[in-house]
Amino acid sequence: MSNTRMNRLLEILREKKIEQVALTSPGSICYFTGHAAAIETGPSPFAPLVVALVLVRQEEPILFIADSESSGDVAAGFEIRKFQGYTYERPLRGLEEVTTLLVDHFNRLPRSTVGVEMGDLPAFILESLRSNCRQLEFKDITDDLAPMRAVKDEDEIRAIRSALELCDVGQAAVKKCALPGLTELEVFGEMQKAMEQAAGTRLPILADLVSGIRTAGVGGNPGPFRIGEGDLVIADIVPRRQGYWGDTCNTCAAGEPNTEQKRVFHGIESALYECIDRVRPGTPACDLDSFLRQRVASLGGAYPHHSGHGIGVTYHEEPRIVPYNQTPLRAGMVIALEPGIYFEGKWGLRLEHTVLVTQTGAEVLSQFRHTL
Amino acid sequence: MSNTRMNRLLEILREKKIEQVALTSPGSICYFTGHAAAIETGPSPFAPLVVALVLVRQEEPILFIADSESSGDVAAGFEIRKFQGYTYERPLRGLEEVTTLLVDHFNRLPRSTVGVEMGDLPAFILESLRSNCRQLEFKDITDDLAPMRAVKDEDEIRAIRSALELCDVGQAAVKKCALPGLTELEVFGEMQKAMEQAAGTRLPILADLVSGIRTAGVGGNPGPFRIGEGDLVIADIVPRRQGYWGDTCNTCAAGEPNTEQKRVFHGIESALYECIDRVRPGTPACDLDSFLRQRVASLGGAYPHHSGHGIGVTYHEEPRIVPYNQTPLRAGMVIALEPGIYFEGKWGLRLEHTVLVTQTGAEVLSQFRHTL
Repeated sequence: MSNTRMNRLLEILREKKIEQVALTSPGSICYFTGHAAAIETGPSPFAPLVVALVLVRQEEPILFIADSESSGDVAAGFEIRKFQGYTYERPLRGLEEVTTLLVDHFNRLPRSTVGVEMGDLPAFILESLRSNCRQLEFKDITDDLAPMRAVKDEDEIRAIRSALELCDVGQAAVKKCALPGLTELEVFGEMQKAMEQAAGTRLPILADLVSGIRTAGVGGNPGPFRIGEGDLVIADIVPRRQGYWGDTCNTCAAGEPNTEQKRVFHGIESALYECIDRVRPGTPACDLDSFLRQRVASLGGAYPHHSGHGIGVTYHEEPRIVPYNQTPLRAGMVIALEPGIYFEGKWGLRLEHTVLVTQTGAEVLSQFRHTL
Repeated sequence: MSNTRMNRLLEILREKKIEQVALTSPGSICYFTGHAAAIETGPSPFAPLVVALVLVRQEEPILFIADSESSGDVAAGFEIRKFQGYTYERPLRGLEEVTTLLVDHFNRLPRSTVGVEMGDLPAFILESLRSNCRQLEFKDITDDLAPMRAVKDEDEIRAIRSALELCDVGQAAVKKCALPGLTELEVFGEMQKAMEQAAGTRLPILADLVSGIRTAGVGGNPGPFRIGEGDLVIADIVPRRQGYWGDTCNTCAAGEPNTEQKRVFHGIESALYECIDRVRPGTPACDLDSFLRQRVASLGGAYPHHSGHGIGVTYHEEPRIVPYNQTPLRAGMVIALEPGIYFEGKWGLRLEHTVLVTQTGAEVLSQFRHTL
């Protein structure tokens, strides 16, 4: 599956005259190998760097992975080399272990250039590589990787669809539970439980879940705030499944919404669907942005955030749907579109779908229907 | 509060002839400033490094923090400088932003040495500092920080107690829900919901929650596995609250345990409490380890993991309770003790308390009582 992506990487390397790479960001690791590293509890005391992908042109790529991590999700075509992260027989030195393996591996190479992700590479590793492999030069290729990820392969679109199914489950749970008298955190708890049951596993979930006056502030984590009669509830749900993120947002009312809220909801909903109608290859990303901002302005409001973004192995990536971005859409891009409107000190509202850019237009990948 | 800890850091710097530091690990940031960075969804696309603490001797310490992060939990005595992580008006460059601030800050300093955490410092930042501040030398001080964290201050002990209250809530939920017919994930969902309700906020939670034959394998994430009549359920619950982790483990039976399970449970329980009786200043960590291993051997089994570990701003730190560690315990250390026993292909069992080393012995900080 990921051979297509490895081949594209090799093309970029040839173009840039780079002979090998060492990739260390969780996004890149998943993108090329399929392995979704555990992220939910921060850096591991057992292995600050749990995984590194090394590719030398004309050789089989190698994935270095801490022995505490499962490698069951690694695609075919990668050699897996485990390093000791956890042990109780001597002091923990997972970072030193993987660094030693990397130094040994690179040491045998002739004078050449190694592409790395400087933002996601621990300085410890680069220092060791520099002092032990003096024939090598290191070059940051982060900016070369970002654009190549924007157009998705078939298996990636499947993975995003699968993450969006969980968003649908989450939105249904919120719609059912967002009742006067419950707290945001209680609604979130039911939502999280429903999504994890549906997935059959724990999930990393990024989520805005705010109610009442807090909806005027765009988003935030759920708190112990009690939902009042007629309050709006914004639920922006972003789970990661098998390494790929899904993203949808709905705003619903606990009890009966007022006339103004209904008017604005339908206005934002129309804006979103008319924007989706404008999605097609060739349309500059900023055109979608300005269309949505104008439509929201005509409703008497605005939003202090992007109009949307690409989504994949990270939850915000190219193409960003923002005023400065003239990048034309291409078939295979997957973008979340999320117009919102916020009335200071009163309430706010945001709706979002994730769509695939097709040859002729757009396919909405999220299945749920926004309901106030 | 953290001035005690900043003063200890200054002492270490004087000793090591280091004039300033730039700290970037989430653990160090919380330890010195009180700020608990969000970790639940991995590296942020908006700011790969969300926070950095810079201390120059004789100057007020500065915390550089992404504008997307709340700084409400930062202790008094720190200057806060925000950098732009998120924006929709131009490309995201949070890492470049914070790097520019750091370079500007360090540029004005005379020839001197800067202590850094090489394992948690992005190579991007070190590269920029090296090429822009040539008068500075950089030295890894990770190993100097680890031992200073082992003895806790009063406010840290309070924070750990508070995290352990959530463990108690979690253990009660598991005890109540671990019934034949439910899945591990359903039990976990109820546990997580109860803990987050009690905390009034979302929580990072590391957890082993396994049942039946899976208990023979020490631990693992909960899955869609249905609990059978008489199955054991291991729940090792490790939540982070206000930056500090708590850690307890219980093993309970869904339905009636058999005679052998009861015998082993009581044996492990006695071993744990007798081990706690041996906790006092001066006792080498390895003595606790060997005591527990011998007691478990006398029950006819063994465990392929540590006997315990320090806990604080990370969930596994000094003093490790392991065979090689001759470090004597000191008053103020907080350690989790967790003897276990695992019968291959059958079942396993583990019990854990977190205790404070006092002047004369130990105080058990976790309040719940292990029950089979």
